[in-house]
Amino acid sequence: MSEVFEEISPADFFYRNREIAGFSNPSRAVYSAIRELVENSLDAAGLIGVPPDVYVRLSKVDGGEVDVYCLRVEDNGCGVPPEHVPAAFGQVLFGSKYRLRQTRGMFGLGGAMALLYGQITTHKPVYVASSTGREDIHEYRLMIDIQRNKPIILEHRVVENGDGWRGTIVEFSLEGDYPRAMPKVLEYLKQTAVVNPYANITFVDPRGRLYMFLRATTKMPPPPKETKPHPWGVDVELLRRIIRITNCKNMVSFMKTHFHRVGDTTAKNFLKFAGIDPNLNPKDLTPEEVVKLVRAMKKFDKFMAPDASCLSPLGEELLRAGVIKELHPEFVAVCQRRPSAYSGHPFIVEVAIAYGGEVPRTGEITLYRFANKIPLLYDEASDVSWRVIKSINWRNYLVTPDMPVLIVTHICSTKVPYKTVGKEFIADIPEVHREILFAIREVARKLRAYLSKREKALKEKKRLGVFSKYLPKIAEFSARVVGKEPPDVEKLLRKVSRFEGVGKSTRK
Amino acid sequence: MSEVFEEISPADFFYRNREIAGFSNPSRAVYSAIRELVENSLDAAGLIGVPPDVYVRLSKVDGGEVDVYCLRVEDNGCGVPPEHVPAAFGQVLFGSKYRLRQTRGMFGLGGAMALLYGQITTHKPVYVASSTGREDIHEYRLMIDIQRNKPIILEHRVVENGDGWRGTIVEFSLEGDYPRAMPKVLEYLKQTAVVNPYANITFVDPRGRLYMFLRATTKMPPPPKETKPHPWGVDVELLRRIIRITNCKNMVSFMKTHFHRVGDTTAKNFLKFAGIDPNLNPKDLTPEEVVKLVRAMKKFDKFMAPDASCLSPLGEELLRAGVIKELHPEFVAVCQRRPSAYSGHPFIVEVAIAYGGEVPRTGEITLYRFANKIPLLYDEASDVSWRVIKSINWRNYLVTPDMPVLIVTHICSTKVPYKTVGKEFIADIPEVHREILFAIREVARKLRAYLSKREKALKEKKRLGVFSKYLPKIAEFSARVVGKEPPDVEKLLRKVSRFEGVGKSTRK
Repeated sequence: MSEVFEEISPADFFYRNREIAGFSNPSRAVYSAIRELVENSLDAAGLIGVPPDVYVRLSKVDGGEVDVYCLRVEDNGCGVPPEHVPAAFGQVLFGSKYRLRQTRGMFGLGGAMALLYGQITTHKPVYVASSTGREDIHEYRLMIDIQRNKPIILEHRVVENGDGWRGTIVEFSLEGDYPRAMPKVLEYLKQTAVVNPYANITFVDPRGRLYMFLRATTKMPPPPKETKPHPWGVDVELLRRIIRITNCKNMVSFMKTHFHRVGDTTAKNFLKFAGIDPNLNPKDLTPEEVVKLVRAMKKFDKFMAPDASCLSPLGEELLRAGVIKELHPEFVAVCQRRPSAYSGHPFIVEVAIAYGGEVPRTGEITLYRFANKIPLLYDEASDVSWRVIKSINWRNYLVTPDMPVLIVTHICSTKVPYKTVGKEFIADIPEVHREILFAIREVARKLRAYLSKREKALKEKKRLGVFSKYLPKIAEFSARVVGKEPPDVEKLLRKVSRFEGVGKSTRK
Repeated sequence: MSEVFEEISPADFFYRNREIAGFSNPSRAVYSAIRELVENSLDAAGLIGVPPDVYVRLSKVDGGEVDVYCLRVEDNGCGVPPEHVPAAFGQVLFGSKYRLRQTRGMFGLGGAMALLYGQITTHKPVYVASSTGREDIHEYRLMIDIQRNKPIILEHRVVENGDGWRGTIVEFSLEGDYPRAMPKVLEYLKQTAVVNPYANITFVDPRGRLYMFLRATTKMPPPPKETKPHPWGVDVELLRRIIRITNCKNMVSFMKTHFHRVGDTTAKNFLKFAGIDPNLNPKDLTPEEVVKLVRAMKKFDKFMAPDASCLSPLGEELLRAGVIKELHPEFVAVCQRRPSAYSGHPFIVEVAIAYGGEVPRTGEITLYRFANKIPLLYDEASDVSWRVIKSINWRNYLVTPDMPVLIVTHICSTKVPYKTVGKEFIADIPEVHREILFAIREVARKLRAYLSKREKALKEKKRLGVFSKYLPKIAEFSARVVGKEPPDVEKLLRKVSRFEGVGKSTRK
């Protein structure tokens, strides 16, 4: 018996293992397809600093007992240059997401996976129209050659772009189960709207119901910037790639040109530390010296920490506003940690805690997770945020399981450490764990202060209740004894009252 | 600003996202590297029905403060044909695992990922020697061209194979953290030995400590057989691929030749059901008919269920023996479910429950998870087995959190529904969920019977204690009253005793 060896294309790999990319069943497929395309649209608008307008329509295609849907997503994003449209939509591992910057998409995979799933369930081509605004509109009908991982162009039309329209339209068919997917889809859109308050998102569901998430502001965060790799995150492969393309003639300029936050002094000090001649031509580094350089990069602690200016966090105000808008809590506290880094990738953690109002009582703390402004709805139990919450002794913060407490975590990074290609949950990386822990502790302390004050206030109210019941009677009795008019006790009551507005909604 | 579009190779994709393949940090990398190579070795021996001999040596390479290890794995498996060695070890998505059969490896990825990780941390080539036994031994020194996903052959030597040696040797360097990885590595090897009792596994750790897991039997399960796809699991893409390669001239022979458990009658009945002309040449199917055929395949309920003869479960005896050997429990019950299927993939669930003995008391039920005879040690909380356990009201089975209770689940399938490429946990697929639930319920009922009997026995012991205390006294008194010798009460006591051997280890 002889073993059969063969090579498969990346499209074939993800076709065979589509569950690892979030396409495990018809319900999940609907959710993942909507999500991947919406995220591409938000990215496409965000990259050119335009408030996103995203229109999503899911309609049921008649014919047959299996549910087949047509999904259409339109955006006003940057558009895809016409020559790249076929590969961008008809090829796996092709895209513009392989750069060091903060985008919702990370793997350059999701959009093509959605179309691939549609193709293997319905055998229909996808329709794509796109323009960067400066050119004509290019319309394509495409399929994917899965075994070769190449697009098949069935039709290509060029339409004049009189109005200077800019954006992308994608429409394709897929088998799905919307009734089962609905709660997750709506929750996804709702939470997406919370963290993208400058976006208009319109969703028309298969029964024609219209869901509109209107923007609350047109103020956009600055578009994410591309950064150079930080020396702490460099491995041998990356260093060799940089050496291959560099034009630098000596190591000092090599370090300054290709790495994040390395100036003249740092470069020279580092090369001395690494024991590498500053005048060496990078192309003359031996394999041993390359390894030595990478190890030294990891060990040298005088590099400046990664700069988080390339990141686009929500900000405390926006996070607070989002939580208040959605849940009208009695109390809310937010915290944005200072930028940190893991393996050379900068990241920022933002956390909110909310109590009361419409926060559900579920018997445990409710957790909303976000990463690069997208909500994560699956596999919560394995997520680093949930692990952090589980590790905390909440009694210390006066929190009991029956209380309506919500925690929101948001991590943004040039590389979010997802554990799955389907972007369901975040790996438990020590640096990230620590930042989340510190952030949660800080807001939890504020919650404790509030809860403790609230408890005191409740006691005070009780005390005041006793006073206000007996004081008038005592006053009246005493007045009668001495034959005088009873005095105004209200003033006195106001005097002994130590707190104002007990039990009212506190929006501080 | 214009977006940069580019294509990356699958090797580049997994290089950039190595954490999703289980290589997230130095400690995890050591664990994953050992695991992937050991699983390849076990598969290589299993495929030719030879009891595996696997030798693993991890040694620390001197020089430098970063820990660099050399990992060597030797096996007596089927060997890799010489012409395939470079691609099998120096290319991602190349291998012999892309067939429908039960193997430990699933993605054809792990081995190359381990070597890729070694290369990017140490920049050293990998050494591979292999022979299928019939030919010379081929030795290679290889590196991976990650950007092109191609092997680079640095050296190739052919050595005469005088002794007819068969097997594979892999040796390479990687950065790692063995002290931190050690508990997981040893746990992994221990649990692997439990479910592979016919394997010899030898491990020499960096401090020269020798761990030997000797085989308890040389009886091997039959090698996994390759199967044809079951109609329930067919999608449009697969059907089109089969149509492309078929030699069948009509639909009846097409159905019979290419699909699992489809005979003449079933084929004809099915084609009638699908409304497809039985005499049609498969190559003449229109795209619409292809879709129609696939939908009909999913709906036709007269197909025979997938045959599990291609699967190689552990069996109840072996599972029981494994649990007893490792944990010496007071009680154990096992259950093997009948074969089932999800999306056309056959699978079998086996479950064991154990109580007492060396089962740890952790405040909750301890879970050992296995899939295709490999232990899963990470991300338990997201695994379907853990979810099933969480969904059960254990009070109904007299189980309280403080009890020493262990559950072992084993799922074997031609396609284990892993959620991650790193094979950490299994997706919550309804069919799999149900089988695990039923299996756990069955063994849990047996545990309840045992626990309830045990409780009764304890009460009985108490009752008997009372009897044995007072009966002799009453007998003596009565005898004295009538002036006779006191009778032998022992006989009477034995008669009222309803249980034997209360509290002793029950190995039934």
